[in-house]
Amino acid sequence: MKIAVIGTGMVGRAVAGRLASLGHDVVIGTRNVERTLGRTDPEHTGASPYAEWHRNNLDVRLVPFADAGSHGEIIVNATNGAVSLQALAAVGADNLAGKVLIDIALPLDRSETPPMLLVANTDSLGEQIQRAFPQARVVKTLHTVLADIMVDPARLPGNHNIFLAGEDEAAKNMTKELLREFGWRDEVIIDLGGIKGARRSEMYMPLFFALTSALGTYEFNIAIVKG
Amino acid sequence: MKIAVIGTGMVGRAVAGRLASLGHDVVIGTRNVERTLGRTDPEHTGASPYAEWHRNNLDVRLVPFADAGSHGEIIVNATNGAVSLQALAAVGADNLAGKVLIDIALPLDRSETPPMLLVANTDSLGEQIQRAFPQARVVKTLHTVLADIMVDPARLPGNHNIFLAGEDEAAKNMTKELLREFGWRDEVIIDLGGIKGARRSEMYMPLFFALTSALGTYEFNIAIVKG
Repeated sequence: MKIAVIGTGMVGRAVAGRLASLGHDVVIGTRNVERTLGRTDPEHTGASPYAEWHRNNLDVRLVPFADAGSHGEIIVNATNGAVSLQALAAVGADNLAGKVLIDIALPLDRSETPPMLLVANTDSLGEQIQRAFPQARVVKTLHTVLADIMVDPARLPGNHNIFLAGEDEAAKNMTKELLREFGWRDEVIIDLGGIKGARRSEMYMPLFFALTSALGTYEFNIAIVKG
Repeated sequence: MKIAVIGTGMVGRAVAGRLASLGHDVVIGTRNVERTLGRTDPEHTGASPYAEWHRNNLDVRLVPFADAGSHGEIIVNATNGAVSLQALAAVGADNLAGKVLIDIALPLDRSETPPMLLVANTDSLGEQIQRAFPQARVVKTLHTVLADIMVDPARLPGNHNIFLAGEDEAAKNMTKELLREFGWRDEVIIDLGGIKGARRSEMYMPLFFALTSALGTYEFNIAIVKG
């Protein structure tokens, strides 16, 4: 499929690279192509400069936000959650209309260590995006694990779970199909219902980040254990 | 040990009954003993009237809040989180001073279905209790699972995790000892650090309640799966 990943950070790269390796026609959208390719310092997350990743992933084209929006039959929001609404506005409401918009972003409040959330309990980023782009078919998923695990759950042993939420059943089914391509088996995908479920899965993240400290690693996920 | 459980609901009963069966000297504290014993209708949670439970658990004495506070060397807050601060005030700040106060309560906003939280992200019930009773040694734990699992984790197969948070290391160690008596092995107990960790584990609960719907059961927990 033609897929546009919005965001050039670690999550965007992991998802775009994996989708391309699965045979999809993938672009990454950025605000300013020249500037993104011109950066030489590592990112604040510790990621290498984009140009370095780009050289090893030439099948993924880097294009301006609006071009990404027109390319993608599916749009993946992998931007910094603090600026997702602006980035998606630049992608273009018209480009998002009617399309599946997979939202992986996190509205992190980095003034806390480990981070807390910029929005929680009474709202969520997933819901904000659905409200801002009512014609997009938003599905919130994948944000509860490290980027490398999002696209390759077999990095961890045994069963562990991933959540999704959204209003549009067909959009959720298309998203599940991509999750299956990444390696998430049907029985580990948990549907939290409508987009309000985004609030619930985003609110798990403060615990997730505390666990990264307690466990000393980001390479983990949670598994539901039933009686 | 002499332990006072505050709260006559399902959580209070489960914890008090289990502690008594382990040989501890346990009281349950309530606002009005006569009224609690006189109720004949099932509780809003579906629990049977207290008097019925009481007849089967005569080794657990029901006493007024303040008497519970003076009895307990360890105090367990198993009240409805919406009224925990008032209940603990009735137990008595003097009775809480210097003691381990294990906080299991949840500040649930039941106007949402499944419930959300009355306080989140910028504060938590565990932190509110520690601030209101600065001489108590608050440890937040056990609130992330069904009452029956709190006191008997072996109801679920294999490894699954429980969290604790609090400022006082000795209080956390005493709490861990009780967790071990319940059946939580050391390797599944995850210390989230200071009492601010309560915020993180309480914020997992909206996901927990959505999962009860998605899974069709409360009989589950999460297990950390590491790479």
